[in-house]
Amino acid sequence: MTQDQIIIFDTTLRDGEQSPGAAMTKEEKIRIARQLEKLGVNVIEAGFAAASPGDFDAIHEIAKIIKNSTVCSLARASENDVRRAGEAIKPAAKGRIHTFIATSKIHMENKLRMTEDQVVERAVQAVKWALEYTDDVEFSAEDAVRSDVDFLIRVFDAVIQAGAKTINVPDTVGYSIPAAWGERMRELIARVPNSNKVVWSTHCHNDLGMAVANSLAAVMAGARQVECTINGLGERAGNASLEEVVMAVKTRGDIFNLTTSIDATQIVPTSKLVSSITGYPVQPNKAIVGANAFAHESGIHQDGVLKHRETYEIMRAEDVGWNANKLTLGKLSGRNAFRTRLKELGIELETDDLLNAAFARFKDLADKKSEIFDEDLHALVSDEFISEASENYKLVYLQVASQTGEVPHSLITVSDNGSEKKAEADGSGPVDATFKAIEHIVNSGAELLLYSVNNITSGTDAQGEVTVRLSKGGRIVNGQGADTDIVVASAKAYLNGLNKLHSKLERAHPQV
Amino acid sequence: MTQDQIIIFDTTLRDGEQSPGAAMTKEEKIRIARQLEKLGVNVIEAGFAAASPGDFDAIHEIAKIIKNSTVCSLARASENDVRRAGEAIKPAAKGRIHTFIATSKIHMENKLRMTEDQVVERAVQAVKWALEYTDDVEFSAEDAVRSDVDFLIRVFDAVIQAGAKTINVPDTVGYSIPAAWGERMRELIARVPNSNKVVWSTHCHNDLGMAVANSLAAVMAGARQVECTINGLGERAGNASLEEVVMAVKTRGDIFNLTTSIDATQIVPTSKLVSSITGYPVQPNKAIVGANAFAHESGIHQDGVLKHRETYEIMRAEDVGWNANKLTLGKLSGRNAFRTRLKELGIELETDDLLNAAFARFKDLADKKSEIFDEDLHALVSDEFISEASENYKLVYLQVASQTGEVPHSLITVSDNGSEKKAEADGSGPVDATFKAIEHIVNSGAELLLYSVNNITSGTDAQGEVTVRLSKGGRIVNGQGADTDIVVASAKAYLNGLNKLHSKLERAHPQV
Repeated sequence: MTQDQIIIFDTTLRDGEQSPGAAMTKEEKIRIARQLEKLGVNVIEAGFAAASPGDFDAIHEIAKIIKNSTVCSLARASENDVRRAGEAIKPAAKGRIHTFIATSKIHMENKLRMTEDQVVERAVQAVKWALEYTDDVEFSAEDAVRSDVDFLIRVFDAVIQAGAKTINVPDTVGYSIPAAWGERMRELIARVPNSNKVVWSTHCHNDLGMAVANSLAAVMAGARQVECTINGLGERAGNASLEEVVMAVKTRGDIFNLTTSIDATQIVPTSKLVSSITGYPVQPNKAIVGANAFAHESGIHQDGVLKHRETYEIMRAEDVGWNANKLTLGKLSGRNAFRTRLKELGIELETDDLLNAAFARFKDLADKKSEIFDEDLHALVSDEFISEASENYKLVYLQVASQTGEVPHSLITVSDNGSEKKAEADGSGPVDATFKAIEHIVNSGAELLLYSVNNITSGTDAQGEVTVRLSKGGRIVNGQGADTDIVVASAKAYLNGLNKLHSKLERAHPQV
Repeated sequence: MTQDQIIIFDTTLRDGEQSPGAAMTKEEKIRIARQLEKLGVNVIEAGFAAASPGDFDAIHEIAKIIKNSTVCSLARASENDVRRAGEAIKPAAKGRIHTFIATSKIHMENKLRMTEDQVVERAVQAVKWALEYTDDVEFSAEDAVRSDVDFLIRVFDAVIQAGAKTINVPDTVGYSIPAAWGERMRELIARVPNSNKVVWSTHCHNDLGMAVANSLAAVMAGARQVECTINGLGERAGNASLEEVVMAVKTRGDIFNLTTSIDATQIVPTSKLVSSITGYPVQPNKAIVGANAFAHESGIHQDGVLKHRETYEIMRAEDVGWNANKLTLGKLSGRNAFRTRLKELGIELETDDLLNAAFARFKDLADKKSEIFDEDLHALVSDEFISEASENYKLVYLQVASQTGEVPHSLITVSDNGSEKKAEADGSGPVDATFKAIEHIVNSGAELLLYSVNNITSGTDAQGEVTVRLSKGGRIVNGQGADTDIVVASAKAYLNGLNKLHSKLERAHPQV
């Protein structure tokens, strides 16, 4: 790492996962972590170890697997949190503990109920606990954007003396604008003693649509680490988008004169993987990774575009991994070709049973769909993991008819912990009828907040990927299912959501 | 308009419409224009009059209807373009002509094939032609971001002398960063003679994710007009988002000390209307108008959130029009209640036939769906206009069954210019079978690029709104359909797309 390289710190697995319904299984987190490593991310924030045993396990597993990226766990400034984080990252080739405490008056008074002196003392203590596990300790001042700058300087001075190596300045509420945010970073670096001994970092939220611009303003003021997420995923309006930060620095080398270690051609594949696993679609007019980002209006016969490509384009689609959509496998592909391609995609199925089940689904899909793309394989494997994780409900059989002028009727058989149950129902459409039939069996009383379908590849025989967002008793989950039959995919998604609601997931959720 | 108010110039109907497949009918444009007026937009760029007779008509119609907002047409710097724009805005209470020419070397040499002198002369001439129609003339220097600043100053000086009242500085390729963009605006205002006699404007694209931050940097440097679109719609990664610009200025009054005339509570309804009409979904983690923008992760029992709301929130959802989702009509509502509610939503059905058809659809919907929301009414009316616009193909009858383990089969009857045709087909799912059956009748050979479904309201009996993006011979269209039955909605969307491909739409597409 040289001084003129920006450290890309990805928090898709921690801050991104805090998006409503985006909770991931350990296997899903590992797949994303592998892809982030392939993308060239410097630091992967893999989770918040003290949140739950599941979070701890996922970090611990990722720490074992990832070799090139630093693996980091978040920890509140408490002894238990820091020690859990330390234990979780123990197997890592390079491990980091990221501890934080709020420094704004509004947070100290209303949330922490601590005095300034207490906050400084706790911050220092947390860094010291962390140093028992790793030299690589990051400290964040939560809600730095609304903190008093003199107090911030006092806290940062103290934690640097205690041994913190990275100082992160978060805009927790997405409140700043670039000029002010750059100025704050500049002032901190100028006034904090020994500021040249640490890496300054920024973590921006997107509530006013300026997370990327704020992050880059901090970089221009001297920050050398940017905390960001794939697709800008994250609570509320999300975090700074990794892909926008990276491509702005790359495209405007004339202004930044900085590099990153990111392999930009892995950006679109990473975006698709995260979208597929979390069920969070990317809007077509999203910069870099949106379907239209490089598309001009149809029928456009702009002289400019034809005569000189650069008149309107500042980046090329292939530079960020578009058009990497390759036909990989077909009906006649064997088990070995299948396993090899999955490996190339960074997907390792750990048992033969898992591989066999996935291969059977692949053969089934190849019967229905003439061309199998990488995206289809990702969906297929996600679906396989989903059914593995499903302790309770599985789809056994579905029959549904719809006809204009008639009421759609659905007949369904669901396996409930191994025992098969049948039900039928009418509905306003085949999906509604199917969901109602499932409810006859399950009686969950969950509320359907959102239903969306996106095709995984183009063409009429593409698989549909259905996301349903269910809410019950204050909990929200995203259920997902993929199939070439949209009604079947919907039934799978609904059952997946119900299975998630069933699992007793209790976690703490910090915000930085 | 006072000096401390920012003029909000909305170009959803012009630059937004240039998104692939987002072409709108005249009726759709009028509905959006009415909503933009209700939102409090100062200037509505209603289209590009010279692009086609349809574009001309839409602007002319909007100019007749809109009273409180200025209605503007774009025009290249040619006599024909400017005169068409002038004719189109003639009925307007307040009308503007927005003329432009490229000023960067790359565009002048490769696209215009004109010298600097020729460009200046043409720009001045265009402003003079425009002044024959209105005092309110805006001039844009296309690709200002990559133009030589001394040449820009020369062009702006000349057009201000000629009588232009607004000078717009566009970042056509979405290439700038806030510090540089603010500096460019500051230098122009400082160095262009008589710069205090005109309103300075900025128009930013979002290719690097910084359109909003760049726009606001220009405002801090003295710009007093921002060109933007609802949902950040627009070619490639789109334009600056109106909602983000407006809410940043409002929320950070401490920094900007500026106002806008926008009624923020109309932001979310406007966003939904534009999304519904264009078929462009808004991603959940989009700032302000995304479904999660104000949502915290489920199960979060953050002390902070409970103890003190402001610890994490800087805006309130209700301030931007969330939760305005009111139950408006039910099964027993009569024709008058229906008409009245449509009127309140800004929808005027011009003939009794249109009203009757819409009312019949409403009754049909109320039979299937227990609660009818405003969003349902918008979808219903969109659908009605869609079928009105459909010259060729209409769905008459559809029957489809799907069953796990069996091949889905679809039976369809389509009216082709009044004559009914039947077909049937197998497919990988009910939607695929239906599209294949339609192709048996139509033989369009169109390629399906994208298929997506979003529910219009929540609940399992919600209507599904299906968007299909079709491509044929280089043209791309978005077809849309809404129904409580997702397969029926898909068939409608596919037929709508085919009807659009059928219409011989030839238009010029300028880029600013």
